[in-house]
Amino acid sequence: MMQTIQIQPLTPDAFKPFGDVLDIAGEPTVIINQGLCQRFSDLATLDCVGDDAKTGISLFNSDKRTLPYQLDMMERHPLGSQAFLPMTENAFLVIVAPDDGGKPSIPQAFLTQPGQGVNYHRNIWHGVLTPLSEPGLFAVIDRIGPGNNLEEFWFDMPYLIGPSRVTAIPL
Amino acid sequence: MMQTIQIQPLTPDAFKPFGDVLDIAGEPTVIINQGLCQRFSDLATLDCVGDDAKTGISLFNSDKRTLPYQLDMMERHPLGSQAFLPMTENAFLVIVAPDDGGKPSIPQAFLTQPGQGVNYHRNIWHGVLTPLSEPGLFAVIDRIGPGNNLEEFWFDMPYLIGPSRVTAIPL
Repeated sequence: MMQTIQIQPLTPDAFKPFGDVLDIAGEPTVIINQGLCQRFSDLATLDCVGDDAKTGISLFNSDKRTLPYQLDMMERHPLGSQAFLPMTENAFLVIVAPDDGGKPSIPQAFLTQPGQGVNYHRNIWHGVLTPLSEPGLFAVIDRIGPGNNLEEFWFDMPYLIGPSRVTAIPL
Repeated sequence: MMQTIQIQPLTPDAFKPFGDVLDIAGEPTVIINQGLCQRFSDLATLDCVGDDAKTGISLFNSDKRTLPYQLDMMERHPLGSQAFLPMTENAFLVIVAPDDGGKPSIPQAFLTQPGQGVNYHRNIWHGVLTPLSEPGLFAVIDRIGPGNNLEEFWFDMPYLIGPSRVTAIPL
């Protein structure tokens, strides 16, 4: 029997152990462009290990997922942070977990608001990119460089994320 | 009499002297997430001058503009590149100019396709952020650090960008 994880709204406080929420809540850092543009500066803690590595901009184009979502695997990046910024106004699903001796503990699931991105801190367990709409187009700011920057953990028993599966009552 | 600059479609070739087009045209670098996600890696030449500076993620929230757009000023950043990735599926206006002895030469104007961002290379003259729809929400990847990283040039005679203004014929 799979355990169901309820989806929470994404807030900076709830997400703090895992990374940064990237949005325009709060006061702008500065107003620019003759008063016509708000700038919210330096929202993410970027982390990139290794003299031969750099931070780069990539684009991800992902198939959408549906709820309830079966979480079979989580991953983490030991050498760098990874930020996801949606290039649409659609919400997406964010799944993270505390570490428990080298494997993910019970996952936590968040639903973004339109206009929110996230930055996973280095070595934080997270699910793969899970848009809930198409196109699943994201700008990704992460480490570009050599070395093994991917660790995966497959669950013996997957989790179910989101609304419980409705069980049809046999007639 | 203001000179009108016609808007061109944004293509990597046309934009090459000024920066990078950030989109998912072409072949993905790698397929990830069990076949469900295309990754297009390291699309931008990021440039960040100074040991006390770093590349960061910011968000810009800009008022929209309308066409024809009056271009009074261009700016450039001598210490770093600046990438703009729309967090909507709306096209936006991109204005750049070659340098001519320390001031912008004749501007060129481009309209993005939905799903396209741009990265202005360091010290390239460009217009301020000009979305044509609301919300004018963008992720911006640029230099965070001390020093004067902004140079502005105000035109004696502004340019008009886009469709020519229709002149009403007096009755």
